[in-house]
Amino acid sequence: MTEQTLFINIERLMSTIEESAKIGQLDGGGICRLALTDEDKNMRDLYIQWLESAGLNVRVDDFGNIYGRKEGKNLDASAVLIGSHLDTQPEGGRYDGILGVLSGLEVLKVLNENQMELERPIELVCFTNEEGARFEPPILGAGGLTGVFSEDFIFTRQDKYGELFLDELKRIGYHGSKDNRAANIHSFLELHIEQGPVLERKELDIGVVTGIQGMNWLEVKVTGQADHAGPTPMTMRKDALMAAAKMMIEIQETIKNHDNEATATVGRVDLSPHSINCVPGEVVFSIDIRHSVDAVREQLLELVQQKISIIAVTEQVHIEINQIWETPASHFSSELIHLISESAEQLSYSHQKMISGAGHDAKYMNEIAPTAMIFVPSVDGKSHCQEEFTKQEAIEKGANVLLHVVSKLAAEKVHAH
Amino acid sequence: MTEQTLFINIERLMSTIEESAKIGQLDGGGICRLALTDEDKNMRDLYIQWLESAGLNVRVDDFGNIYGRKEGKNLDASAVLIGSHLDTQPEGGRYDGILGVLSGLEVLKVLNENQMELERPIELVCFTNEEGARFEPPILGAGGLTGVFSEDFIFTRQDKYGELFLDELKRIGYHGSKDNRAANIHSFLELHIEQGPVLERKELDIGVVTGIQGMNWLEVKVTGQADHAGPTPMTMRKDALMAAAKMMIEIQETIKNHDNEATATVGRVDLSPHSINCVPGEVVFSIDIRHSVDAVREQLLELVQQKISIIAVTEQVHIEINQIWETPASHFSSELIHLISESAEQLSYSHQKMISGAGHDAKYMNEIAPTAMIFVPSVDGKSHCQEEFTKQEAIEKGANVLLHVVSKLAAEKVHAH
Repeated sequence: MTEQTLFINIERLMSTIEESAKIGQLDGGGICRLALTDEDKNMRDLYIQWLESAGLNVRVDDFGNIYGRKEGKNLDASAVLIGSHLDTQPEGGRYDGILGVLSGLEVLKVLNENQMELERPIELVCFTNEEGARFEPPILGAGGLTGVFSEDFIFTRQDKYGELFLDELKRIGYHGSKDNRAANIHSFLELHIEQGPVLERKELDIGVVTGIQGMNWLEVKVTGQADHAGPTPMTMRKDALMAAAKMMIEIQETIKNHDNEATATVGRVDLSPHSINCVPGEVVFSIDIRHSVDAVREQLLELVQQKISIIAVTEQVHIEINQIWETPASHFSSELIHLISESAEQLSYSHQKMISGAGHDAKYMNEIAPTAMIFVPSVDGKSHCQEEFTKQEAIEKGANVLLHVVSKLAAEKVHAH
Repeated sequence: MTEQTLFINIERLMSTIEESAKIGQLDGGGICRLALTDEDKNMRDLYIQWLESAGLNVRVDDFGNIYGRKEGKNLDASAVLIGSHLDTQPEGGRYDGILGVLSGLEVLKVLNENQMELERPIELVCFTNEEGARFEPPILGAGGLTGVFSEDFIFTRQDKYGELFLDELKRIGYHGSKDNRAANIHSFLELHIEQGPVLERKELDIGVVTGIQGMNWLEVKVTGQADHAGPTPMTMRKDALMAAAKMMIEIQETIKNHDNEATATVGRVDLSPHSINCVPGEVVFSIDIRHSVDAVREQLLELVQQKISIIAVTEQVHIEINQIWETPASHFSSELIHLISESAEQLSYSHQKMISGAGHDAKYMNEIAPTAMIFVPSVDGKSHCQEEFTKQEAIEKGANVLLHVVSKLAAEKVHAH
């Protein structure tokens, strides 16, 4: 039996997805399962039962990352890792993160029930606090494992009520040992929903993810003059909102005219005063700029800042631009990218290479091991909302590609040193 | 002695303004004295002492409006009313409302100390809850007196903690008798700070206010599609904020191109989601449109709605426009307007007729009696903020105009029926 004759059991996979969706379930069909809450603990407890039933060796590291390991024939061989996360946004969906973890579990069940004895061990990882919805920044568990964030940084993160990450991790009983962190890693694979509309619009089954876009977050403070709406003639105003609106449109046009890949988003706008009969004196808005080529992103960043500075002059307002986050682009392993394309091809699934606009656990895993991701379509491109949905047949195809790629990677003969 | 030889005592007036600014004083020099709070009670208690010291007959009506009356020679003559309010915004200034009440008191002191025996009685009114900052809508006390609002409506207004207007009015001991409401009113005059920049920019002493602009408040809900900022290409977005920004600019251009008087203000903008890495799916923003000619305002309202509806179509978003408030323009008494201009002229103060963009107690008093207002310059046009400021010499000129106009009105011989 080879990996080409193996297929995942979609009914079994869907039943675990259904079960997991009951923990933290919301009325709208979505899930609220913030990291290190009671819901997260309940999910973890159930998940560990599932890992043990599947015959996997379970361990938990000091960041609360949970591993389920299937040994390979070669006890010294580096491990093929698969994984994602089980935490959600406050009004999150049933698939973001969860699909990658539970599809990984299904892959291991199939390999075990078919008595597949592979060369390499396979480890399924469930990372802590990927969403960053409770403890900022996101991707803390994977960031800890890969050394992007220090232990001290992670343990001292606070939620909005001032609760510490480490205290909450201990409270739910998932502060494991540092010795349990993954080591000797061969590669990392993550199956995830696209969270965008591209695959669905192009009627594609599989996105072969070649990397993650780099990103800048800026905060622009526009200062004009607050005035009473009634007694201040239009020509005597310095309306911070009107200047900001022109800037927003200019940002959009600049990015749209550049290429098809670049994005810029204004997601937050705060006015002061914020009153129906006041001319806003101050507007603070955010800009999120992304591109997969760092040099292009840096150029766009420069261009956008120039253009809004010109508007500030013509509109007679003052602006202050602060960068609040920057992360370079990630480029995934070309060998893994090739393996994913090949497996999709062999399974006769339509597929296309694409860039991820969103960050994932794979972003930081890519820093320490050959990494790639598999995307499946999101209906209407929706995610981080209760309506988030991926069709069963899309899940089946994604999980089959994961199964085939993992099998190939783990079957590789390990050369003696 | 005639009114032309009388002048107010600016030091005495400034000292009462200083005293009043201590009640509810904020660190930034402004005042927080919301209607029917303990601060309002303390202010009222002190104010009544001042009225009594000035030899006025004090009474309080069922809305908490306080009257101080100086009798005239003719006991049946209708009364000349002067007034404004002593309540403030949460971070209000020292002059908005207060100037009108305390200048009125100074006018009465000058008339009394000069033994001016006038034909008509003069009543100084301090209205309850003009600001509407605690109990919405604004101008409740004057609205009650003039029958714009019913007793039941006023008494059942709630603040944001659910406290009732009537309960709070009783708690501070200012629920007087319905019999005490002003009756037999000859005219109403209100001295007020401009709250806009026009007089200062034009270096004028006195604004002769001919009326109050009519106003519409609209709420526009723009519905696009919420998307994750990263994975959604620019061409696949329905960004509610970008559509809203285009609408805001179009509104501004439409109004600016119409005439010098029309104003439109977007003072509130709320995004959903409101997150740095989300494409906003819904934006709700307010529009405040004002003009002194109701027919023009209605045309502008129509035009603005048409233009933003066109943008909704081109931007492929849905809009819903709700009107949340409408109030027609007020046109003040031409006789009083003339008297104010004449008095300013006699005093050699520079003056100009102007429209008020903001609402005032005078708006509702105009419904039941000949009414007009006198404006004095606001430094930088600032108001409803702690920096609100009017220079002493501007206050002196405004109060002198008030003194002269009131004297002339009250001196008029009353014809027997």
